[in-house]
Amino acid sequence: MTDEVKASLVIIGDEILSGRTQDKNLSYLATWLNEAGIQLAEVRVVPDIEAEIVSAVNALRAKYDYCFTTGGIGPTHDDITVDSIAAAFGVPVIVHPEAYARMEAYYGKEKFTDARKRMTRVPEGAELIDNPVSIAPGVRIDNVFIMAGVPQIMQAMLEAIRPCLKGGRKVWTQALTVHAPESKLASALGDIQNSHEDVSIGSYPFYHKGYGAQVVVRSADMDALQAAMEAVVSYCDQAGFDADPLTDVN
Amino acid sequence: MTDEVKASLVIIGDEILSGRTQDKNLSYLATWLNEAGIQLAEVRVVPDIEAEIVSAVNALRAKYDYCFTTGGIGPTHDDITVDSIAAAFGVPVIVHPEAYARMEAYYGKEKFTDARKRMTRVPEGAELIDNPVSIAPGVRIDNVFIMAGVPQIMQAMLEAIRPCLKGGRKVWTQALTVHAPESKLASALGDIQNSHEDVSIGSYPFYHKGYGAQVVVRSADMDALQAAMEAVVSYCDQAGFDADPLTDVN
Repeated sequence: MTDEVKASLVIIGDEILSGRTQDKNLSYLATWLNEAGIQLAEVRVVPDIEAEIVSAVNALRAKYDYCFTTGGIGPTHDDITVDSIAAAFGVPVIVHPEAYARMEAYYGKEKFTDARKRMTRVPEGAELIDNPVSIAPGVRIDNVFIMAGVPQIMQAMLEAIRPCLKGGRKVWTQALTVHAPESKLASALGDIQNSHEDVSIGSYPFYHKGYGAQVVVRSADMDALQAAMEAVVSYCDQAGFDADPLTDVN
Repeated sequence: MTDEVKASLVIIGDEILSGRTQDKNLSYLATWLNEAGIQLAEVRVVPDIEAEIVSAVNALRAKYDYCFTTGGIGPTHDDITVDSIAAAFGVPVIVHPEAYARMEAYYGKEKFTDARKRMTRVPEGAELIDNPVSIAPGVRIDNVFIMAGVPQIMQAMLEAIRPCLKGGRKVWTQALTVHAPESKLASALGDIQNSHEDVSIGSYPFYHKGYGAQVVVRSADMDALQAAMEAVVSYCDQAGFDADPLTDVN
């Protein structure tokens, strides 16, 4: 498909890599992008180390239409995302006048501390991403979108940038939960995949009151998706496997 | 620190990138490794595409002491991890006699289908990782550990490989939850970080019945950690910030 639009995500933060914090942004962003017709194609999680952030962002912004980042844009010494992405682009960090004005208006001159002023810094040439939750803006430079790590702020920033993103064809997805061991489905699914080239068929085993597998069929062509899913349902009927009703999912 | 041991993780699966499945292995592995004195330093999430798996595994196995993978070792056509990692090492895929014997004994000759036989394939030269949950083994080749994506199987495989891993110094962590805006802590935390070079201080803002931040201090040197944390607590006391009791975390 020539009209595929692909995105990538760099999750920045020692707290994710230490296991202390469970990331919630990946699955939210993936679902949100999917609804916009954009496919999340690769994710990297990197520590709060400039060289690692630079390397990941430069690799992914070159490879995909969009590169999103989450985390590391707060007021403290370990918030180095803006500096790192300026380094990735080879540009200096400047104070953005509009960001400064917004933050000063929100906090008032007295409470506009040096730490808060730190959150008005952007790579030169960057634009702001509105943050209705806590004012301190996100930053866009070229195809890189620098967003907060706090989920509710990240989600608000996504709504703000929606009009800037070009969407591809929406990818449709249906899932069938089959109560039979995956290995008994494997051969048939391989055959169905081979004879339905416009769809992508995935199979995800589980153990819950017995063996089962969720069969997921994805395609930008709804007719192709339905034809492939009918073949799966028909095989399960013939084999005598129990299956739950079809569901639409991401 | 010269005795740091670093690991990486490649999460393989379209279902994570589509948002359909929330990954649970990253935070579990991170915590588990941390207890073994091994630091999870980088994670990549890649789709079920051989070239992407090869590229991620080759980058990370060269860069870190260990590379773990999760996902894509089941019986279906979209399970391509073994083939991809064989390609990454430039070796052929073979049937492992011991894996074959274990699976045949478990299922019996009649139920040992072609799909299940697929799960006895390994890159040439690889060793098996025991799987007490569902028998089909994981695979170790050099410093790469190929594990299941299903969390309970992945966790059982981790216990099986624990004796093979060299541990570094355990990293200790303490956290202090402060009920004050992060921006009011930022300057002091920066100063404390600068004067305590053997620790790493992180700050993670939250919004829950008011602004707050969790301050996390990490170090392989417990005395250094405690000295830095005392400085943080002392600052909060002087500034009149409410703080919860100290907690030990990962």
